[in-house]
Amino acid sequence: MVTAPARIKFLKAPTSALWVDQAISNLDVILLDHSHCERKAAAAALNLMFRYPSSTDLVYELTAIAQEELSHFEQVNRWLARRNIPLAPLPPPPYAAGLKALIRPKEPHRKLDSLLFSALIEARSHERLGLLGQHCPEPELAAFYRGLMASEARHYGSFWVLATTYFDREVVTDRLEEMAIVESELLSTLHPEPRVHS
Amino acid sequence: MVTAPARIKFLKAPTSALWVDQAISNLDVILLDHSHCERKAAAAALNLMFRYPSSTDLVYELTAIAQEELSHFEQVNRWLARRNIPLAPLPPPPYAAGLKALIRPKEPHRKLDSLLFSALIEARSHERLGLLGQHCPEPELAAFYRGLMASEARHYGSFWVLATTYFDREVVTDRLEEMAIVESELLSTLHPEPRVHS
Repeated sequence: MVTAPARIKFLKAPTSALWVDQAISNLDVILLDHSHCERKAAAAALNLMFRYPSSTDLVYELTAIAQEELSHFEQVNRWLARRNIPLAPLPPPPYAAGLKALIRPKEPHRKLDSLLFSALIEARSHERLGLLGQHCPEPELAAFYRGLMASEARHYGSFWVLATTYFDREVVTDRLEEMAIVESELLSTLHPEPRVHS
Repeated sequence: MVTAPARIKFLKAPTSALWVDQAISNLDVILLDHSHCERKAAAAALNLMFRYPSSTDLVYELTAIAQEELSHFEQVNRWLARRNIPLAPLPPPPYAAGLKALIRPKEPHRKLDSLLFSALIEARSHERLGLLGQHCPEPELAAFYRGLMASEARHYGSFWVLATTYFDREVVTDRLEEMAIVESELLSTLHPEPRVHS
């Protein structure tokens, strides 16, 4: 079962059926992890604004993205409350740390890599929320995922556009290609704990 | 000219006329600093959520506060654009760092002090935005400050309520008293650079 929509062209390999089965069998844990993902995405957007306070396009675009992530965070937390799942910490899978390790420490590389880091995570989240929207056996929760997916669809495009605002398109394409290969490798073995990015 | 409304009871000393004169004479710098303040307030709310992911009331309340701060950030940035002031870094005054030094590193003190740190900054911001709303010679900008002030008025109360959710009221009152004294001392000498908290 290979269900990644072809249009998520950033991703080198689609999510496996194994992940879908793992996620569907652990919807409560996935919801809790999803809550953490939305909060982390908002924080990542704010951190980028802190680091590049003079980059007007970046600041404007990431303000909008952070606002949307916080709204999703709120919505996911309402689902948790509805299912009586208490808010709690949850150890993250190695995915984001593995991807973050690709960010080169010196500018201007750091800016490019940070934008592509977020673009790739958004693209993968978009794909996986889509899979949950398609396969989740609870119709209302499935509809929620489809709604989120639709409104998150723009995010990975926004990070791509920001990258091409500050860097030559060819530089962006080449670096994205390199990072996307690692991104798919990081997910090639299913992490034993169910997570959005296991 | 001592114009602090009496109801901002957290504050030990009202803002001086010197600050009002400095701010009114440097409205562009104040606007740029204000933009940074709103972004930092949103980031501080997110950081607290990261640190206390199981504190449901805190997470819910700070999500709403972070959303409002980001909306204010956006509004201030529109004012900057309108006045052709480019987004740029700006060295902060010593105020926030001085106040942060009061946060005791060990729990549960750290949680209490962090909430009161934010409560005090919000109370002071509320007072100073009110002063700008009152004294700013540009009617439209003055109205903007009054609007912000009104919607920010709840924030310092929210931090106080959160503190009393997790700590005994007497403990909160005593610690707030100690921190508020330092807060006013930090502002007793006008910082030479015009800032929201100079």
